[in-house]
Amino acid sequence: MKLQHYLQFSDLTADDYGWVFERASIIKRKFKAYETYHPLADRTLAMIFEKASTRTRVSFEAGMYQLGGSVVHLTTGDTQLGRAEPIEDTARVISRMVDLVMIRTYGQDKIERFAAHSRVPVINGLTNEFHPCQIMADLFTFMEHRCAGPDGKLDLAALKGKVVAWVGDGNNMANTWLQAAELLGFTVHVSTPSGYEVDQAVAGLRSNESYKVFKDPMQACRDADLVTTDVWTSMGYEAENEERKRAFADWCVDQDMMRVAKSDALFMHCLPAHRGEEVEAEVIDGPQSVVWDEAENRMHVQKALMEFLLLGRVG
Amino acid sequence: MKLQHYLQFSDLTADDYGWVFERASIIKRKFKAYETYHPLADRTLAMIFEKASTRTRVSFEAGMYQLGGSVVHLTTGDTQLGRAEPIEDTARVISRMVDLVMIRTYGQDKIERFAAHSRVPVINGLTNEFHPCQIMADLFTFMEHRCAGPDGKLDLAALKGKVVAWVGDGNNMANTWLQAAELLGFTVHVSTPSGYEVDQAVAGLRSNESYKVFKDPMQACRDADLVTTDVWTSMGYEAENEERKRAFADWCVDQDMMRVAKSDALFMHCLPAHRGEEVEAEVIDGPQSVVWDEAENRMHVQKALMEFLLLGRVG
Amino acid sequence: MKLQHYLQFSDLTADDYGWVFERASIIKRKFKAYETYHPLADRTLAMIFEKASTRTRVSFEAGMYQLGGSVVHLTTGDTQLGRAEPIEDTARVISRMVDLVMIRTYGQDKIERFAAHSRVPVINGLTNEFHPCQIMADLFTFMEHRCAGPDGKLDLAALKGKVVAWVGDGNNMANTWLQAAELLGFTVHVSTPSGYEVDQAVAGLRSNESYKVFKDPMQACRDADLVTTDVWTSMGYEAENEERKRAFADWCVDQDMMRVAKSDALFMHCLPAHRGEEVEAEVIDGPQSVVWDEAENRMHVQKALMEFLLLGRVG
Repeated sequence: MKLQHYLQFSDLTADDYGWVFERASIIKRKFKAYETYHPLADRTLAMIFEKASTRTRVSFEAGMYQLGGSVVHLTTGDTQLGRAEPIEDTARVISRMVDLVMIRTYGQDKIERFAAHSRVPVINGLTNEFHPCQIMADLFTFMEHRCAGPDGKLDLAALKGKVVAWVGDGNNMANTWLQAAELLGFTVHVSTPSGYEVDQAVAGLRSNESYKVFKDPMQACRDADLVTTDVWTSMGYEAENEERKRAFADWCVDQDMMRVAKSDALFMHCLPAHRGEEVEAEVIDGPQSVVWDEAENRMHVQKALMEFLLLGRVG
Repeated sequence: MKLQHYLQFSDLTADDYGWVFERASIIKRKFKAYETYHPLADRTLAMIFEKASTRTRVSFEAGMYQLGGSVVHLTTGDTQLGRAEPIEDTARVISRMVDLVMIRTYGQDKIERFAAHSRVPVINGLTNEFHPCQIMADLFTFMEHRCAGPDGKLDLAALKGKVVAWVGDGNNMANTWLQAAELLGFTVHVSTPSGYEVDQAVAGLRSNESYKVFKDPMQACRDADLVTTDVWTSMGYEAENEERKRAFADWCVDQDMMRVAKSDALFMHCLPAHRGEEVEAEVIDGPQSVVWDEAENRMHVQKALMEFLLLGRVG
Repeated sequence: MKLQHYLQFSDLTADDYGWVFERASIIKRKFKAYETYHPLADRTLAMIFEKASTRTRVSFEAGMYQLGGSVVHLTTGDTQLGRAEPIEDTARVISRMVDLVMIRTYGQDKIERFAAHSRVPVINGLTNEFHPCQIMADLFTFMEHRCAGPDGKLDLAALKGKVVAWVGDGNNMANTWLQAAELLGFTVHVSTPSGYEVDQAVAGLRSNESYKVFKDPMQACRDADLVTTDVWTSMGYEAENEERKRAFADWCVDQDMMRVAKSDALFMHCLPAHRGEEVEAEVIDGPQSVVWDEAENRMHVQKALMEFLLLGRVG
């Protein structure tokens, strides 16, 4: 099998996503039914965390166990990429011992250098630039709620023409939404405070056709199928916290924004959420919010992704 | 199955304890015989530690593996309950991904808020107020030595009328002994230094009939079936260390105390122990001490508890 | 089965090593073929790390999973040997709950006190004095490349008369090479800067016949079958870093040293490596270097070692 990494959303094709989402759906059903399914028996995942995490940690680790595999969890205390030895050496050594590597780190360049010297697939568990596993989970959750046939079959093509409103920071989540929109044929309405814009070059888009920029977050939400946001201050930017609080004050997803979206619009948030900052409690705890499904689905799509990277189109 | 948590000793009935101790006995025998027993295959336990631990960590983790399950171990570095997000949100997310949660934390309120929003059973792995898993292990150890029939069958009713002497701090261990005594019909003789008394309200007792308070620890030990103590300074109280050393100087379990207890009295300590402080070396390393059995039994009773919480009365 | 620890290289006999290396070879082939082999199913390894590690961590943990077992990973945050309680108590408790213990710590005395009170085998995962698992991996790697028959069968006797050049610090690696040479019949050429000499008493040798000391590292490398080195400043000696850089300046394994060694000499390094300090990039990244095989082999020899300590001569 050809070595396949998952470093950014565009590393898989639309056709691959159709496959992975279908598998995620099947694997989720097995999980709910307590049906044993161990395609990754005897396989080991190494997880390298340079930033702390709860959701990424639990979803990957529990997911790997559910598929019959094992996990080695390395934190910065154990391994700081590029400190004790060149990243390339760490990649060579670790990839001799395990079958799969998940990395949460700072610069995208670090994960790319690791992958270039790894014998086994590498998964981006969040970098400063991208968070592809989260967007996979978000799209899967959206499709479960809005693109499923009566038999529960998910229809990737139904994403075409849909509108996702991104309200807030032009961060790794926003970049990844742009990549996903270009690849899968939907549109992102982006509204960020001045100074926090998305950068098309970072996202590596072929064109600017799949997204529209709005000064006013309310305008971005108009007729959206999905409204989504993130904390004002992501990990690593804590020093800017006060400045960001001022800049982002009008980028709080509230009930007014949800009212101008489509009547069946969903609300998502990758969590942790700060109620009263980037989202009102009435929205995240309201009937349109699917944040808990979204969190659980991290686990199921990642299981399908790991299966795909290690075994290809099996099952 | 109805969702059942284990947040304090009184969360199970006497009848439940009869079941769980019997199962612990069977599960322990299987372990000693290297007999494979995997009732929790494909189940995952999340352990959240806000205070460090060796015994709780190893006993739960190794225990879960022995039952065929998996463990995700989260420390404060990964998850600090209530810091990055409300405890309720953490509970909602984690309980979507795993089957069981063990928490070691500070206030009992934290574990109660977590449990209130969890879809899966939550186990108290020590709080400021209670340490029910340790008292389960202590009772099980006592019954192995003093309440077992010739066939090894344990008799919960034989606890009735027994006397446990608690010498030292009126802490979470003491509170839990009081709950256990009220529920299972034995008596606790409590002797603490002035200012470190047990608080019946914290233990939530219905009456004061199941315990007696003694100024003199020697009096508390008189005719006791079990003498037990704990370190003078529990985790989280290190700043009071010097003050406590002075206050607790007469609350050292020594050979004189053991001599006034019943001739077949046992000595227990939840460990780690400081010889020369709360217990003399001659006692903890002497023939009446069962502290190593007690430590090992943490693992076996917790396995029986996890089986009970997840599967009910099976086996 | 008699309780067998692995605290230093001399804890096994030459005959034991013949067995273990043969098993490592078989176990490695199974791994490469994705053949399930679970002799340690239901067994749990506790790993106690008082010094950080990547290679030791991943190699033991992934190795244990590959053999069907489980791992509890304890760091200093969880357990600092001898701080909260006497090492002897920790040994008694942990060895009641798991089947095998690996310890990476400072003084050799700590691991010896632990082992003296453990019910289960204890493995040295690096101390200030010894690093026997690394030397096992190095010898196995050497034999794969230089002492294998046409059928791949390894010949321990072929080590006799071989010359290993140790260039650099007279540290735990050097001590362990000396023990191995005396036991298995090869010769070590040691060249260290003044003040960093090996100490025959630490290595506990019966005689000085199995090693020769050279002032000039070039002379040590002459006609060597294997040239090997380590970082100038091992973990725990960071304060001496600048002083060591000056002292070790001439102890950099370079192409000139490799040229005076045998034409088919191998180069090894236990990693992490600092190119330009203890080794030139042209050497470690050159055709004689087998450092990546050496790193992977840590895992395979340790699997064979764990199998041997727990099950004896099975398979």
